[in-house]
Order: sequence, then structure tokens, then C-alpha cells
Amino acid sequence: MAFKHLLSIKDLSVKEIESILNDANDFLNKKKNRNSKKIKGKNIINLFFEDSTRTLTSFELAAKQLGASVINMAVATSSIKKGESLIDTAMTLNAMSPDILIVRHNMSGVPYLLSEKVNCSVINAGDGSNEHPTQALLDALTILRHKNKISGLEVAIMGDVLHSRVARSNIYLLNKLKAKVRVISPPTLLPPGIEKMNVKIFKNINEGLAGVDIIMVLRIQKERMKGLFVPSEKEFFRFWGLDYDKLNKAKKNALVMHPGPINRGIEIDSDVADDIGRSLILEQVKLGVAVRMSVINKLINK
Amino acid sequence: MAFKHLLSIKDLSVKEIESILNDANDFLNKKKNRNSKKIKGKNIINLFFEDSTRTLTSFELAAKQLGASVINMAVATSSIKKGESLIDTAMTLNAMSPDILIVRHNMSGVPYLLSEKVNCSVINAGDGSNEHPTQALLDALTILRHKNKISGLEVAIMGDVLHSRVARSNIYLLNKLKAKVRVISPPTLLPPGIEKMNVKIFKNINEGLAGVDIIMVLRIQKERMKGLFVPSEKEFFRFWGLDYDKLNKAKKNALVMHPGPINRGIEIDSDVADDIGRSLILEQVKLGVAVRMSVINKLINK
Amino acid sequence: MAFKHLLSIKDLSVKEIESILNDANDFLNKKKNRNSKKIKGKNIINLFFEDSTRTLTSFELAAKQLGASVINMAVATSSIKKGESLIDTAMTLNAMSPDILIVRHNMSGVPYLLSEKVNCSVINAGDGSNEHPTQALLDALTILRHKNKISGLEVAIMGDVLHSRVARSNIYLLNKLKAKVRVISPPTLLPPGIEKMNVKIFKNINEGLAGVDIIMVLRIQKERMKGLFVPSEKEFFRFWGLDYDKLNKAKKNALVMHPGPINRGIEIDSDVADDIGRSLILEQVKLGVAVRMSVINKLINK
Repeated sequence: MAFKHLLSIKDLSVKEIESILNDANDFLNKKKNRNSKKIKGKNIINLFFEDSTRTLTSFELAAKQLGASVINMAVATSSIKKGESLIDTAMTLNAMSPDILIVRHNMSGVPYLLSEKVNCSVINAGDGSNEHPTQALLDALTILRHKNKISGLEVAIMGDVLHSRVARSNIYLLNKLKAKVRVISPPTLLPPGIEKMNVKIFKNINEGLAGVDIIMVLRIQKERMKGLFVPSEKEFFRFWGLDYDKLNKAKKNALVMHPGPINRGIEIDSDVADDIGRSLILEQVKLGVAVRMSVINKLINK
Repeated sequence: MAFKHLLSIKDLSVKEIESILNDANDFLNKKKNRNSKKIKGKNIINLFFEDSTRTLTSFELAAKQLGASVINMAVATSSIKKGESLIDTAMTLNAMSPDILIVRHNMSGVPYLLSEKVNCSVINAGDGSNEHPTQALLDALTILRHKNKISGLEVAIMGDVLHSRVARSNIYLLNKLKAKVRVISPPTLLPPGIEKMNVKIFKNINEGLAGVDIIMVLRIQKERMKGLFVPSEKEFFRFWGLDYDKLNKAKKNALVMHPGPINRGIEIDSDVADDIGRSLILEQVKLGVAVRMSVINKLINK
Repeated sequence: MAFKHLLSIKDLSVKEIESILNDANDFLNKKKNRNSKKIKGKNIINLFFEDSTRTLTSFELAAKQLGASVINMAVATSSIKKGESLIDTAMTLNAMSPDILIVRHNMSGVPYLLSEKVNCSVINAGDGSNEHPTQALLDALTILRHKNKISGLEVAIMGDVLHSRVARSNIYLLNKLKAKVRVISPPTLLPPGIEKMNVKIFKNINEGLAGVDIIMVLRIQKERMKGLFVPSEKEFFRFWGLDYDKLNKAKKNALVMHPGPINRGIEIDSDVADDIGRSLILEQVKLGVAVRMSVINKLINK
């Protein structure tokens, strides 16, 4: 098992996925040594072209807990301003011999493009509306720890699928792990080609939630509210926001997930989001650090 | 002795205060081990909703000198933009299991609010015009190292008391340590209820400074100058700025303090600020790192 | 050998320069221990008043690879806003007892000014159009590793010499190491007094490049394009941009350098910049980390 980059869930075998999740579990249970000699002194650069509190902090914490050295580069405010190209920035950083570049960019494909140019490992920390593989991995670990399996589970992904890299990575991963994946979305927020992704498509929310084990609610960008895709926040919440009425259509012990940050009262009801019996939202954050430790550890020990 | 948070000087017993100051002294004198095993690998998040060079750097240095791992989050530029609530941000960070959250916010009470929601320790690094407990502690240490005692000293706090969290924390702390506290301020810059805080109030600066051992000059926000509170910078300096003429009303060996950054020629004369025989301003900065090491160390070893 | 600051190439003896370059070489070849006890726990503050991805990251990596603790302060966004003076900011940081301040500022002389006020060592990371000593040192190391010597080499510095701190530091350093230095530049971009700096001045590019071993292309600020100095990007590239036609005037094995970030198609042709047989641009970046490790190491062990 020796993948060099983590760019897309599509590149991972089931064995590799299971191994990442197992190691993450071991880190959580402190069975795995957090400060290995191999990682001490390794250099990890967070190259974020997009603002992100939680993902950046999660990767930074993961790397530091492993004993690595971390440098954050918020590139919006630096050399790109001087007109340096994306690739020149990456080549320059590569010349400084880091061990891993963790890249977030609002254009799909940027981490892949950079991985072709640099010598070090690249982790995709979210690229446009393409993929966010560590999010899907941490979601899988969260489901596993609560349902003890993924295979055979009915998982509904609900909301703005069109713009969601989280949806895309989860569809790939859940299919690999043999969950039954549904997508529940207004027609204007469904991506073209979704029918070929091995998911059941529901445009009716009550039908879509019937018999479901896991509901992954997607974040909707407030910018989408202004016309085009969605009439208004209120309308969206009424028809597509997850409240108890809609949640009751799912299985009795159905669990709720969300990649965060949540928009309370838009795609999810505040009470549902805070319901510690049903909502796994904060646990997703917690497990995110462990999954990222596992991925970083694998790339450094490859 | 086991306080979980440092939110307000009001919560500290005299014993706890003395113990914090003693440890800080030991760190300064290198009697205390800076890199304890207990602290290595601990995670400290600086969650600053307000810009601050000196306080942020001071906490960061303190934590790193203890061997802890530090993550800085300047939240103005991150998720809050995406409409995430304050509490959701804190709960998200909490889910990543940090050991200490150090919080600065321009609204009073935010660190207290967050401490109710998270599992980790919270340090108040300044909240609105409420409190700035580590500043008061470092001020106390500075006085102690120069006067060998605090009990019985005449301490004048001078300037914009109304908007000053530094004034408030110092009034609580100096009273606990039995100093005699005076407040010297134009009537428009006195907070309501100040008369119940066990301080003598002076609206005449010459009377207020007579017989004083320590003068704490407060920073005045330039925004206050535009009407309402203060007529103009020149006027303010003439009547309330600490120059040698006014300083000469105090005791011969009276010492001058200021939480910084100073406005030269507004609340304090440049020559007074730079007078190494009288001004403790830079020593306050130096002792600030030691006091913060002491507080962080106590919270982690609680 | 015991210099306290690195402010200007002018302050360094040839012996000191050689020793810096030797140590950098040893760090590269892993002959020198990266994590010395003396450096562990040392505090380095990057005080950058100007945006810079590459220089900041390079210093940060260098310091961390030595085992030092690094604090980054992007001062544009902090206390200077509150009206604190440059010197007060430096004095405040100095009071926190760092070991090295690494300073970048858009005004010439700032690092020197600060070095007069603080106790710790100061490294000039670029000041206005004055100097950028670590850039010249890494350029020298790059040349040495490719030409095995510097003495006697014909080195052309080409482009916007007027505004270039890189040009100035390189002219001093190359002269100390007995290279023959030429300057090739349009008359509007030549600084007054350049004729006294022991360089040959060429206003004709073909003559200037004839017989040259090394061509250092300078970055031109796009702001200069708007009138005054340079007619337009296209014009500049046609007359002064380094393409293969112009490169062919130099020696057959002439090598190309650039401090970065490059403006493709303005001062340098894309193909020349990416020509791994001729361009040393990415190697300069790589050697930059080693040279900065060497300088930091010397200042801490002084």
C-alpha cells in the first residue's frame, strides 16, 4: 500500500480506505504512537487559496500532533497578488523541499495539477466543486463508529449537491464501501450526470428520507439564495431544511451529519443540529483530526 | 488550587494570585523547568476576534516556551465571514480537543459564554471593556518586583477608565492585594458604578497624583477623540496626559506603567514613557510572557 | 567571527561570507546537525511589514529545521493600525526577549534602525530598494555549486537596477568575491551613483551579454510599467526581456538566475525560465533555505 498523493477518493482501493480508517481509530484510541521519529522534522505546508477555519485548523492540529512542522500559507494575501502563477507558487514551495503540500483551491483540479509538478506528496483539502476526500473519509469513520458497518446502510445526501465537493467525495466513498446512496435535492441543485454515479435520485424529500439510516445534510452557500437556484432562505428551509418533521420520515435511529459550518434555520433546524442523540456534527469534527493524522502519517511513511 | 479557566480576576483567591505570581517569578529566574513533559504535545488555540500584536505574540511565546503546540486563529478573516455563529466556532474548535482556548473579543462576556460551552480551559485575553486578567497579573508582578510589596501602596489609574478592561481587572486585583486604589479621570470617561468598586475618585489630576507610588496610565482610543468624550488630542494631553509636571505631583520615586501600545503625546509624554528610571512599560511586556507561562502551566497541570 | 546582525553585505568580511556559504553547504549535504541543543527553544520573530510568500516561508522553514520556535508577525494588519510607531513595535517585541528579529520593510534602513534599539540579533530580509543580503548569499552559493568558483566570473545583472535591493546586495557581494560585475539596464532604471559601485554599465543588451557566465535577471514591478520608467510590458520584453535570442549572446554555458517571483513574458521568457539546462531559478529557492539556516545558526551561536 503506497499511494503518494491523496487527491480523489476514486484513486483509493477499499483496502487503502480501510487502512486509513483503522489507523485513525488507533490514533483516537491512543493505540498508535503520535510522535514517531519518522515524522519529527518533516515539513508540511498548508497552501490554502480559500479561507477555511475548520479544515485548516484540523490539518494543522493533525500534523502538529504527529510531531511535524507546519507552515500555513494563506495565498490570497501573498505572492499571487504580485501576479505569480499558481504553478510558479507551487514549484517555488516544492523547491524548499517540503514533505507534504496540503492544497485548498476554489477551482476543481488544482491539487491534481500541482501534484504533477511537485516532488512532494499533495493532499487535496477541497478543490472547487470537485472533491474533498478527507471529509468523506472522516464521514465514513463517523458512520462506522456509530453503526459498526457501512455496507448495506441507506445513506441520503441532501441539499445543494450541484456545488458540493463533499457530496461528490462521499458518493464515491460510500459506493466503494457498499452503502446504498440516495441523493435528495431540488432539480436546480442536481449536477448533470448524477444519474451515472450509482445513486438513487429523489426530488421528493419525504420519499427520499423514508427508511434512511444516515442523513448527510449539505451546506448551502448563501450566495445561491439570490435567485437562480433557490427562491429564498425561508422557502429553502420550508421545503429542504432538515427539521424534526422531515427527520421523522427516516428510520427511528437515523443519524444526522453535516460537514459544517452549518447555516442554522436554512439547510438544518437548530434543534436537530444540536440534538446529541441524533446529530453527529461535532463528532465529525473530532474524527476529522484523527483521519487527517492517519493520512499524513501514511504519506510520510509511504 | 485548581481553577479551570481564567476569565476574571474576581474568580481568583489571594492564594491563587500569589501562586501565579510566584511561578511567573520562578520562570523568569529559570528556577522552573520550561519544558515539562506534561505540556509537550498540549494544544493551545489563540482565538482572537480582535487584532492584537502584543497580546497574541505574548501568549504565543509563552505557550511555545513551555513546549506546547500553538495554533493562531484570526477569526475576523475566517469562518465568521461565512455566517457561522460565535458558539458554533467555539464548539467546532472544542471538538478538536484543544487543551486551552485563549479568547479575545470586542464584546464583554464572550470568554465566559464560551467557557460554559467547551470542555477545555478558557483564558480571557481581553473582552470588550470588561476584563483583561493576565494584564492585571503582569502589572502586579511588575509592581512587586520594583516595590517588593503591593499591600499599602497608593496606586493611581488614570485616563479613559470608562472603556478600559485593563482598569477594571487592575481595580479588582489591587484591591485583593490590599493596595489603595485611586481613579483619576475626566467625568465623561468614568464608568457608572465606579464609586462602588472601592476606589477613590479624583477629577482633579494634581490632587489625584499627590502621594502616589504607582501611576497606571490608560491608553485612550483615538476614536474617542472625535467629540462626545474628549475635545481633541491636544486638549486631552494638556489636561490629562502624563508629563513631568504632573508626574512631579506624585511621590519622588513614583513609577509609571501603561498597558501599551502607547499614544505618545496624547495620554503620555514621550520623555516620560522612555524614562528608564521611571517608566516600567517595557518591563511590563517582558513580565507578561512569564505571567502567561505561569497561567498556561497552571491550567494544564490543574 | 562574531557578527551580531546581518543588515548589509557591506558589513561582512570575505571570511565571514565564505563561512556562511560553507555551513550552508554542510546543511545541504546533511553534514551539519540540523537540531542542535543550542537552538532548541530559541525564539525567532519574523517581523514582515511587506507581503512576501517566498522569503517568509524560506526563513520560517530554515528556523524550524534548526529546531527553533518561530512567530510570524504580519504587521500591516496589526498594531501599526492602532498608530503604534515602528520603534515602539520593535521595542515591545524586544522586551519579550526573542533571539532573532527577521525584518522586512518597504523603507530602506529600517532593519538598521531597529538593530540600534533592540538587544537581539536582527536579520535584514529586504529593506526598500537598499539591500537583501540573504538573497545575495544564496545567489553566491548557487553560482558556486554550478561554476565551482566566483572569482573571475563575468556576471551580468539585468533590468530594473534602480529599484532593486537584490541588485545592490549582489553588486557588493560579487565584488567582494572578485567576480566581474556588469549592469545592463535602460537608462531610466539605473540608480544615480551606480558608476561608483565597481560595475561596468551597459545600455546595449547585446554588448552587455557578450561573454557573460551568469545572467541575473531582476524582477520588474508591474507598477513601473505605467509610464515614467517603462513604456509597456510588450516593449519592455522586446528590448529587455531575456529570451533565447538574447541569451545566445552570452557564453555557451551561461546560466540564468532570477530572485523570483518571475514575470513570465516581461523580464524573462517562459521557456528560458523553465529551461532546466540553463535556469537556476528553482535551485536558488532551494539553496535559500540552507543559506538562511546557516545565517540563523551563526547568529544564535555567536
